[in-house]
Amino acid sequence: MNNKNNDLAGVAYGQKLSGGSGKVNKGAAEKIKIAFLGGLNEVGKNMTLITYGNQMLLIDCGLSFPEADMLGVDLVIPDFSFIERNADKILGIVITHGHEDHIGGLPYLLKTLNIPVYSTKLTLGLIEGKLQEHKLLSKCELNEIKPRDIINLGPFNIEAIHVNHSIPDSLALSIKTPAGIIIHTGDFKIDSTPIDGDIIDLPRLGALGTQNVLCLLSDSTNAENPGYTESESKVGESFESLFTKAGTRRLIIASFASNIHRIQQVIRVAHKLGRKVALSGRSLENVVGISTDLGYLDIPDNLLINMDELNQYPDEKTVIITTGSQGEPMSALTRMAASDHRKVRIGPNDFVIISANPIPGNEKTVGRVINELMKLGAQVVYERMHEVHVSGHACQEELKLIIGMVKPKFFIPVHGEQKHLRRHAALAEAVGVEKKNILLVDNGAEVELSKSGARSINTVPAGRIFVDGYGVGDVGNAVLRDRKHLSEDGLVAISVAIDCGNNQLISVPEIVTRGFVYAKEYEELLDEAKDIAVDVIERFENSDYFDGNAIKNKLKDEIGNLMYERTKRRPMILPMIVEL
Amino acid sequence: MNNKNNDLAGVAYGQKLSGGSGKVNKGAAEKIKIAFLGGLNEVGKNMTLITYGNQMLLIDCGLSFPEADMLGVDLVIPDFSFIERNADKILGIVITHGHEDHIGGLPYLLKTLNIPVYSTKLTLGLIEGKLQEHKLLSKCELNEIKPRDIINLGPFNIEAIHVNHSIPDSLALSIKTPAGIIIHTGDFKIDSTPIDGDIIDLPRLGALGTQNVLCLLSDSTNAENPGYTESESKVGESFESLFTKAGTRRLIIASFASNIHRIQQVIRVAHKLGRKVALSGRSLENVVGISTDLGYLDIPDNLLINMDELNQYPDEKTVIITTGSQGEPMSALTRMAASDHRKVRIGPNDFVIISANPIPGNEKTVGRVINELMKLGAQVVYERMHEVHVSGHACQEELKLIIGMVKPKFFIPVHGEQKHLRRHAALAEAVGVEKKNILLVDNGAEVELSKSGARSINTVPAGRIFVDGYGVGDVGNAVLRDRKHLSEDGLVAISVAIDCGNNQLISVPEIVTRGFVYAKEYEELLDEAKDIAVDVIERFENSDYFDGNAIKNKLKDEIGNLMYERTKRRPMILPMIVEL
Repeated sequence: MNNKNNDLAGVAYGQKLSGGSGKVNKGAAEKIKIAFLGGLNEVGKNMTLITYGNQMLLIDCGLSFPEADMLGVDLVIPDFSFIERNADKILGIVITHGHEDHIGGLPYLLKTLNIPVYSTKLTLGLIEGKLQEHKLLSKCELNEIKPRDIINLGPFNIEAIHVNHSIPDSLALSIKTPAGIIIHTGDFKIDSTPIDGDIIDLPRLGALGTQNVLCLLSDSTNAENPGYTESESKVGESFESLFTKAGTRRLIIASFASNIHRIQQVIRVAHKLGRKVALSGRSLENVVGISTDLGYLDIPDNLLINMDELNQYPDEKTVIITTGSQGEPMSALTRMAASDHRKVRIGPNDFVIISANPIPGNEKTVGRVINELMKLGAQVVYERMHEVHVSGHACQEELKLIIGMVKPKFFIPVHGEQKHLRRHAALAEAVGVEKKNILLVDNGAEVELSKSGARSINTVPAGRIFVDGYGVGDVGNAVLRDRKHLSEDGLVAISVAIDCGNNQLISVPEIVTRGFVYAKEYEELLDEAKDIAVDVIERFENSDYFDGNAIKNKLKDEIGNLMYERTKRRPMILPMIVEL
Repeated sequence: MNNKNNDLAGVAYGQKLSGGSGKVNKGAAEKIKIAFLGGLNEVGKNMTLITYGNQMLLIDCGLSFPEADMLGVDLVIPDFSFIERNADKILGIVITHGHEDHIGGLPYLLKTLNIPVYSTKLTLGLIEGKLQEHKLLSKCELNEIKPRDIINLGPFNIEAIHVNHSIPDSLALSIKTPAGIIIHTGDFKIDSTPIDGDIIDLPRLGALGTQNVLCLLSDSTNAENPGYTESESKVGESFESLFTKAGTRRLIIASFASNIHRIQQVIRVAHKLGRKVALSGRSLENVVGISTDLGYLDIPDNLLINMDELNQYPDEKTVIITTGSQGEPMSALTRMAASDHRKVRIGPNDFVIISANPIPGNEKTVGRVINELMKLGAQVVYERMHEVHVSGHACQEELKLIIGMVKPKFFIPVHGEQKHLRRHAALAEAVGVEKKNILLVDNGAEVELSKSGARSINTVPAGRIFVDGYGVGDVGNAVLRDRKHLSEDGLVAISVAIDCGNNQLISVPEIVTRGFVYAKEYEELLDEAKDIAVDVIERFENSDYFDGNAIKNKLKDEIGNLMYERTKRRPMILPMIVEL
């Protein structure tokens, strides 16, 4: 989907950029290039490459989760071939924050390339866990930075800027180069009452805004939403009143494992109201462990209990924090809803809060979990009813504020689908960025910016690489096409043994179906298919030579036609010839 | 999903109903039974069976569309086995309106059973089309009724009551029996400025409310939404301002084919503003044809043009009405977005209005169509931006109003998932229905009602029957499990020829994969699998007899293990033995 419209790469919002042959600049020293390897026209696998002269800097390396049509795919990472080709030029990679769509691709990148990583303490903690899993930790160079730190990498003078987001320790980046300043917001919102202390560093962004910023790249996730995103603290207030409402019931709160602010708020309220907290879900335990160790979660002594200890407390004295807010099939909450959780049985004495909104595409699975929990008698509070969730991304007024403060010459909306990018582009125009300087680009675009103009100079490989089991990139369209075909109508496999000397069938054909029909009810049909196979092979008996492919194609056609005629289904026909 | 919790069938909102052996009533004449064959804990395949004494009446016979896990299934219909078993008792079926979830199952029901059908003119027109397609029309008895008509079928005195909904000619039903009055709302909303003339017949519902209604069954679809549903006329106002905004651009409006009110409004505005209207999509042409013939659509002469005639008019003089508002893969709008429509090329001179909200589960596909249209340069107006759609279902205030007017003794929320049914139950309680008289039931429940009480008396078969091609009910869980398995990791088929006399392999094994890996990159792995097959069969050479299943199981295990070890994938292993 993303690369289909690669002609889009380099289409300006206002006007068509000049092509590769156009001349905009004079001095080579004044040009900077930005290539987009992921995160445009999609939500996920964010990755940006900045080039000045012969030196390169990477920002983020995320993954995305497979779409419904990527059958059997575990996850999707960016195409690293352009980076691999330029490995000797890359000075480092800076990571804005610890979400999967910003760090999830790193182990796959660092498996083959030795690139120093720069990020904040918590982000590095989460990256370490990943690298350890992939047995890569010992060979990777991780460098901790703090907000307002400056990293000098060749021509890049990179400043870390604190932002608010749904995970602590998130950064925007200001990248000073001889060609001008590039600011990348990362993912952000403006939160005046954040859980972890500081408001987004607006003073610093404002100061940079007086320095002729060449280009702003900004988070478009919520560009469709008017107004401001509510403060994370709002959720804490809701929790307090819902805890009270739950009364003598057990509380179960589902959220994202990485939403440490949310977890912190549950912990605060639980502590205040005298409930113990248990964690259900491996990723959650993992994140809570890392965050506590690194000082990002403040958990009072003796507040946390084991899932096994739940029985020792009355329901009214417990809260279970769990994963599964998106209805993920294997998650703890989904298993609870299906009465399939080893340690939790849901009943009328449960009060469940789903503290997240469904990500587009997950509405149905989340709804199913809610329905099943209710059928078991639980009360369920979810998005449509109370303020139990706020977004981590800036809405329209915040987005405009940032653009207005940073005053960039060029604006490139990033992190979003086309509809988000377009909306964000319109916002930039509304706050005064010249329409011709707003660039709507696609993954694979490389744009060249200078004070005098922008042009699209290149298209770089930026496809989707599928990870399936141990395989990286070995599942492509042909395999997916077959999986889709098999998923819809199953298969009919027919095996025959043929004497290659005289093209004679020397056995009764063996036939097997899977995912097509109940074989027992269709025995007659399968016998007919065998008869056809015998007939087809007889017709080849007079051939001078043995042509296995011709026989297979004929079997495919004729048996396929029979199946369609009788069932109006088109199973995959799999002819196999054992040659004797 | 629906039948998993069949123990729910007959759980009252307020209290547990007395079981089958309980005695509530004295006179048999005063009891009425309601069985739910579909439409509870789901959106779709609505079907209700009312029994008085030994005589039965059906309401609606819908279909539902397959969920994501029903791979390859075309559509889902109710289980008719209970009806078939009681065929001689059924006096008729009344259809409330012409939507698929109320009429879509009819051809499958009437294929084997001869049941007279009663409904309004438009609904019957749509049903006729379906029956013709299934070559059943000549043998079916269709009876036209109008609002306020009364049908007498044995003990059932059925009155048709006009309601507002997103298709004309929709009905609620009042069913008078010696045991009391049952009112079924069908799908409805309250629209004070409807497109087709009359407001829902509140006076009649109010009058019935004075007659001690025994039970109200009401539409729960929008029970989560506070307030009132906007009038359909509102959309006409939006259209008018958007048509003006579109200026010299071509307009493309996507909606549901059956939303005749919506189509009427496009036609009115187009006519007023001097644009010709073309229709794209077979179902749309079909519905417009039937509705025009029957007098439900008022199209000025010479307003409609062919898709082929579009070229003869400037863009600013045309509107295309199309299907695909849900991002359906084969729909006209999806094909336009994919630059794959035979007659429409989308470009910057197109102004697209998606006049529908995504049905839960379709958000992602709808979003994709919007993104692709935008990439082609079109302006796209959709749900988040303007009032281009209103629902056809009543919101909380309307639902309360109906319950308050009808004043039923018993209340049963229907048409909705658990979360909708529960919300609706709470609304009923809020307007004064006694909690113990609010029944939360599931498909398969049969409840017995009388003036003195309610009890759950029976569980009837009410599963989901899958239609796949010509097959009705022949795709079950085993077939779906195989399709799922195949969709995730594909298959490895291995065929060997064995001499059954001595258990000896008499050929090189033939191996084929589909949907598993790129075979070329994995030749070595496949050769290893062949070696394993040879090895496995050799181990059977000393057996006294030939045991094909034992060999197959061994091949499955050992080749499966090899594949998992190397790829971390679990393809289906399909061993085939040609016996010589």
